[in-house]
Amino acid sequence: MIVREDLLGTNKQIAAEIREALTGRGILGVNFLSSPGAGKTSLLERIAERMRGETRIAVIEGDIETERDAERIRAKGVPAWQITTGGACHLEAKMVAKVLPNVDPTIEYLFIENVGNLVCPAAYELGEHIRCVLLSGPEGDDKPKKYPRAFTTSDVLILTKSDLFPHLPFDPDRAAKEALELNPRLKVFVTSAVRDEGIDALISFFRKARAGLVRHA
Amino acid sequence: MIVREDLLGTNKQIAAEIREALTGRGILGVNFLSSPGAGKTSLLERIAERMRGETRIAVIEGDIETERDAERIRAKGVPAWQITTGGACHLEAKMVAKVLPNVDPTIEYLFIENVGNLVCPAAYELGEHIRCVLLSGPEGDDKPKKYPRAFTTSDVLILTKSDLFPHLPFDPDRAAKEALELNPRLKVFVTSAVRDEGIDALISFFRKARAGLVRHA
Repeated sequence: MIVREDLLGTNKQIAAEIREALTGRGILGVNFLSSPGAGKTSLLERIAERMRGETRIAVIEGDIETERDAERIRAKGVPAWQITTGGACHLEAKMVAKVLPNVDPTIEYLFIENVGNLVCPAAYELGEHIRCVLLSGPEGDDKPKKYPRAFTTSDVLILTKSDLFPHLPFDPDRAAKEALELNPRLKVFVTSAVRDEGIDALISFFRKARAGLVRHA
Repeated sequence: MIVREDLLGTNKQIAAEIREALTGRGILGVNFLSSPGAGKTSLLERIAERMRGETRIAVIEGDIETERDAERIRAKGVPAWQITTGGACHLEAKMVAKVLPNVDPTIEYLFIENVGNLVCPAAYELGEHIRCVLLSGPEGDDKPKKYPRAFTTSDVLILTKSDLFPHLPFDPDRAAKEALELNPRLKVFVTSAVRDEGIDALISFFRKARAGLVRHA
């Protein structure tokens, strides 16, 4: 439909402006998307614990209702802004643009946690440089081909809750293989927020991505 | 927006016609919604195993892509139709209306599995008599207030994957309490498809609901 294309067109334009502004300041923007409860906030808590202090980071939290996720991040000593969409099933670039003037412009990383939804957020760029899709073990290794767009539009696949894999009929290799068939350029990480595993490798990947951004800016 | 209200209005109208047709034939319609991977298909597999033979049931499966879920149900000897939305994040009544002429009109129960999405499907009636929202342990007990509409519009809350509860920071009582604060008329069931637990109680609830439907039809 024309209407929808126009809306996405406007979103794409705002997203491009956000990306340009972030790049100009040497801020790496990362957009995390997944089903509800795949572990986005828990992963961000671990990232916050590791990066705060030595690195300046900020988090934007997207949810339909409640400030719960922003509160969890603030409890880690990291500034966080909550966007409550009041019903909307995804973040849009204009919502992020509205929050950005409040964010310290000297940060190095801006992490954006999207509304928990493996479908709709995939259609909306937010000005990120890197898009991460999370798939948790309990969701099942058959999900990439059933929800392809989140996987085809992402740069990184994070298989979360690896501590639960032994209790599940979940094959991380099958999940990764299926996602890579859809999108061979995906970088794959396996993490457990509970056991604090795989977080360093992911942060190291973000650091390299930011170094590349600053070099080419 | 007017456009959206009109679209929903039309959906509501088609849904009402479906509900009337089902009621007239003594068919109980049940719509299952949840996040991806909360266990809708596994629950339907267990229901199919229990009810087939003595009871005539049929299943409509909604997914963005693949026939995987319908194949899983057919493998249980129960007729299943796959609706692939090709990108759309929820089922709509008109999609169900298109499939219905193929469904044996002498069935007693029609189970509809929605697209895995805890947000958007809540806004679309499909002509069901009973709406069930599933929340799996791994998703976390804080989800009802973050994704309220799925809980406020449902009749039944099914807490799934109870076999995993001991491995999780998940309190089923807290999840149920939070959902009941949003919607006190919710009937709550706890199930494990892996351990085949809690399925009989749920089926018994559906049987009573159908008996009421037939009595009042």
